[in-house]
Amino acid sequence: MNKQQLFEQIQRKKSFLCVGLDPVLDKLPKHLLKYEDPILEFNKQLIDATHDLCVAYKPNTAFYETRGVKGWDTLVKTWKHFPKDVFTIADAKRGDIGNTSAMYAEAFFNQESSDMSFDSITVAPYMGKDSVSPFLTYEDKWVILLALTSNAGSQDFQTKQSEDQKLYEQVITTSSQWAGSDQMMYVVGATKPEEFQNIRRLAPDNFLLVPGVGAQGGSLSAVCEFGLNSECGLLVNAARSIIYASSGEDFAEKAREEALALQQEMEQILKSANLI
Amino acid sequence: MNKQQLFEQIQRKKSFLCVGLDPVLDKLPKHLLKYEDPILEFNKQLIDATHDLCVAYKPNTAFYETRGVKGWDTLVKTWKHFPKDVFTIADAKRGDIGNTSAMYAEAFFNQESSDMSFDSITVAPYMGKDSVSPFLTYEDKWVILLALTSNAGSQDFQTKQSEDQKLYEQVITTSSQWAGSDQMMYVVGATKPEEFQNIRRLAPDNFLLVPGVGAQGGSLSAVCEFGLNSECGLLVNAARSIIYASSGEDFAEKAREEALALQQEMEQILKSANLI
Repeated sequence: MNKQQLFEQIQRKKSFLCVGLDPVLDKLPKHLLKYEDPILEFNKQLIDATHDLCVAYKPNTAFYETRGVKGWDTLVKTWKHFPKDVFTIADAKRGDIGNTSAMYAEAFFNQESSDMSFDSITVAPYMGKDSVSPFLTYEDKWVILLALTSNAGSQDFQTKQSEDQKLYEQVITTSSQWAGSDQMMYVVGATKPEEFQNIRRLAPDNFLLVPGVGAQGGSLSAVCEFGLNSECGLLVNAARSIIYASSGEDFAEKAREEALALQQEMEQILKSANLI
Repeated sequence: MNKQQLFEQIQRKKSFLCVGLDPVLDKLPKHLLKYEDPILEFNKQLIDATHDLCVAYKPNTAFYETRGVKGWDTLVKTWKHFPKDVFTIADAKRGDIGNTSAMYAEAFFNQESSDMSFDSITVAPYMGKDSVSPFLTYEDKWVILLALTSNAGSQDFQTKQSEDQKLYEQVITTSSQWAGSDQMMYVVGATKPEEFQNIRRLAPDNFLLVPGVGAQGGSLSAVCEFGLNSECGLLVNAARSIIYASSGEDFAEKAREEALALQQEMEQILKSANLI
């Protein structure tokens, strides 16, 4: 999916919500345990209940790998269940030397190789340009580079002053030379809303993937105040607050209610900004 | 495997060689294609041919993920084929917010969860302490943190001056407070031998995992000059130069010859340093 198509989906659905599919077996509604693959059933029902309210889904690979081969199979089958009109994000935080990153790109982008083809993958910047470039050789596929993450550990290195910039600023500035805003997004946590003005100075046109709204405590309105641009430019992720809205048989219905509340808030924001 | 046991294996085998198992289907000897899982057969024969000459094996997860569910199955079965006396490294370069890194730790360390239990995993430092800590809660399991990698992109951020240190120096200094040398190793590429003196100043007691000897052009003797410590302190990885030593039916035999040449060079180095 290219940038224009993504913005069209945002306008059509009046939403820039991304739903994080990070399922833990122990937290699943008990009635799902009778299924052969309870996590797949959980994901499918969540997708069916929310796909008209969100523009993106973001499974985090850790939650699948933790169950070994079975888990990887669940990830592939979850990918196959995504409707065509959603932007799909493999939240994998990969990155390695060039020839190895090329293998990761095949793993997440080349369906012939791995049976999956996400629209995008999150990538860790530490290893620099040749660790990112292989992901940029696929048409209409995206790198979502970690910039300023939502967790406490983001203070350990990302915000340290490096030459005349903080490290995360340097990551944005340097990587902007590797690809344009039609192929590169950045991860910026909702827990740092005060940084969005600064980030928009460095990356005015890029989409930002924003985790940390909901369970992690970030505020949607604070993020939007400086984060929105003329093509929306934001994908705001919520995971736990939606997928675990209820632990009963009504989990999908309650997930829809949570997603709807966020979609309606987003619709107001998009209207106020004259984007719809 | 703990640090003392690792050093004992190094002394017993007179080797600090790590063999990188990074198989690509297209590069496999053709006669293996008749097997149901050619890559598994390739790995098994390589392990059988080299395990007395090396102390560690390091499969890079990218080379398995690229083949989807099948590839993950090959990784699990390769892990099961490792002899008990080798140190096993999941070269996965993972790292995420705390609760997600805990899932990755289960994926690579908890056999009940994922059917695999490596001795160690490579971790990317960008997301800081809470992205690394969950891997440190397992007894006798190790984090191998990326410090100064072997690729060209290592110049993009790792060597930039951050406050009074280069970023990679800051990574070592800061992470030294998270765990001792009994649980933390660092990745330092062989392509930067001039940095080893400096790194030993910051991390005198830690083992260093050193990729980049062989196909990437690093020199073993240059690495050892400043890299060795009183418990050896080095695991030097070679992958392509060993696993692709021949593309014929003699591939395992030729791999053994390459591994033997490195082991013999290492034996001389260990003797000269009075470590055996």
